Amino acid sequence: MRIVVDAMGSDNYPEPDVEGAVLAARTLADVGIVLVGDETAVHAELDKHDISNLDIDVVHASQVIAMDDKPSKVIREKKESSMHVGLTLVKEGQADAFVTMGNTGAVLAIATLRTLRRIPGVLRPALSLIFPTTTLPVLIDAGANVDNKPEHLYQFAVMGSLYMEKIRKIENPKVALISNGEEESKGTALINETGPLLADSHLNYVGRIEPKEFMRGEVDVGVTDGFTGNIIMKTSEAIAKEMSDLIRESLMSNPLTILGGLLARSAFTKVRQQLNPDEIGGIPLLGVNGALIVGHGRSNARAVETAVYQAHELVQNKVVEAIAEGLAGEQ
Amino acid sequence: MRIVVDAMGSDNYPEPDVEGAVLAARTLADVGIVLVGDETAVHAELDKHDISNLDIDVVHASQVIAMDDKPSKVIREKKESSMHVGLTLVKEGQADAFVTMGNTGAVLAIATLRTLRRIPGVLRPALSLIFPTTTLPVLIDAGANVDNKPEHLYQFAVMGSLYMEKIRKIENPKVALISNGEEESKGTALINETGPLLADSHLNYVGRIEPKEFMRGEVDVGVTDGFTGNIIMKTSEAIAKEMSDLIRESLMSNPLTILGGLLARSAFTKVRQQLNPDEIGGIPLLGVNGALIVGHGRSNARAVETAVYQAHELVQNKVVEAIAEGLAGEQ
Repeated sequence: MRIVVDAMGSDNYPEPDVEGAVLAARTLADVGIVLVGDETAVHAELDKHDISNLDIDVVHASQVIAMDDKPSKVIREKKESSMHVGLTLVKEGQADAFVTMGNTGAVLAIATLRTLRRIPGVLRPALSLIFPTTTLPVLIDAGANVDNKPEHLYQFAVMGSLYMEKIRKIENPKVALISNGEEESKGTALINETGPLLADSHLNYVGRIEPKEFMRGEVDVGVTDGFTGNIIMKTSEAIAKEMSDLIRESLMSNPLTILGGLLARSAFTKVRQQLNPDEIGGIPLLGVNGALIVGHGRSNARAVETAVYQAHELVQNKVVEAIAEGLAGEQ
Repeated sequence: MRIVVDAMGSDNYPEPDVEGAVLAARTLADVGIVLVGDETAVHAELDKHDISNLDIDVVHASQVIAMDDKPSKVIREKKESSMHVGLTLVKEGQADAFVTMGNTGAVLAIATLRTLRRIPGVLRPALSLIFPTTTLPVLIDAGANVDNKPEHLYQFAVMGSLYMEKIRKIENPKVALISNGEEESKGTALINETGPLLADSHLNYVGRIEPKEFMRGEVDVGVTDGFTGNIIMKTSEAIAKEMSDLIRESLMSNPLTILGGLLARSAFTKVRQQLNPDEIGGIPLLGVNGALIVGHGRSNARAVETAVYQAHELVQNKVVEAIAEGLAGEQ
């Protein structure tokens, strides 16, 4: 197996990207790592690490995609970018997966429209975010789309369900539509039209669910349009940040609370660890013809390393093949 | 001024509802409080408090609306409910505002379709939720609607802006559309169509905003469709609860963290206080022809009391009149 890592992806490229790839290469003895990016910069970074006995190749790419580059422009003007070159390696069968911490819109566009392309039958690829609450349910679509139709949501449900089966080894995962209430009288037209499609399917569809019950893990797969999914993801991050800041500030308010905060430090570290996106890695884009993990721009080496493990799992568990099979003949 | 309080609204009616009304009556010397509900039950509850010198009336209503009653059924079959009777008092000019902790769908239906009705020109009433983060921005619509159109969102922006002007005394409040990104290339069709309407208006429209920046208070008014607004509200509540639970659990993990937690207790209480929905009260429904505050079913007396103060502010600052004037001639 060969996994391509975008060396120019993160906000602080190539440092965390290269270090994360090296860390993953040390653990995954049977996997070759391909770093794609400016070869001078990548080699300079690799020189900081002991990579003897590691299976790491470097492939040159002369262009870098910035976080504010528009997807439409990137497709036309950045064919020599690390993303385009890296994804082409996967498309041509020279590698099995691509990992990037770069511009999400750009990688989705390059993967979907120019390189990997969609699996036959897939209408819209979707981001499947593992939610870092206790039972680790998956939210799909977490933001690859806006303005989805019922048949898109139906496919998200199939893909999310297969993902949980293959990666988390959950048999017959429970699937629900994320809604503003469990009652059929609530919900948007989109939700009302998608419900019957899911109820009539082979999936273990249990109805509608509110965010709270989704996060508590009452189901395995939460299905939603990409706009709502992205808003849920971003609201969750914002509230977690607000609360951490409030608590930190509040703990500094007098000597007693400062002492208490110091004594309880290990507890806070534990909570931060559990909610830490670095331990989650990135988000797989399901529905394209190849394994692809997209991470946060502000990722550190540990996040890149985790994302490589995710890519490894996707390939090892043949998730792309399962989706192709699961959606063959449908649509 | 007379404010009607639904005595049969909360999950534990009539106890918190009546107690909250009594507490508010003690503070608001110039305001008459009208408790609507089963008169035997209400008087029995009132007997537990010292209400000498307080201006509190009781109006009988023989029916109670349950939390799972369907709005469509309530409209037809519960015309003697505390909500219907109470809202009728406001509609007929015998009172100025209505406060309930009851079934949100039911009160929206009775208010909009049967009693107060919409202010002329208003297409869709909307819930305007004050977000308990530092700068207290308002989110509108927080869940009165699903499937909104651009002209609805435009009116939400006008109403939210007037609300912040009148209640929070903010001149020319900053208005933004809640979106999945600040770029014009993101956003749903609804957002893309609403943007130009707001840009061409007299409002202080500053563009699109993500949940994080909204919560940080970069704008005063966050405009969104009712489905998305409701999901933001519910996701926020869920994450805050998850984090509190995680921290509490984590603090119990060893003697040192338990001691730390005890010493830092005042800090946690402060954070809980700030995020406490009881201190926020309820959510005004803007766009109906009368002042209406809807609170959580699980409200305690303090939450009911706060909701009465909110109703008082709505009436005193003539928010309903301002909306009527602001939207007159529009649409």
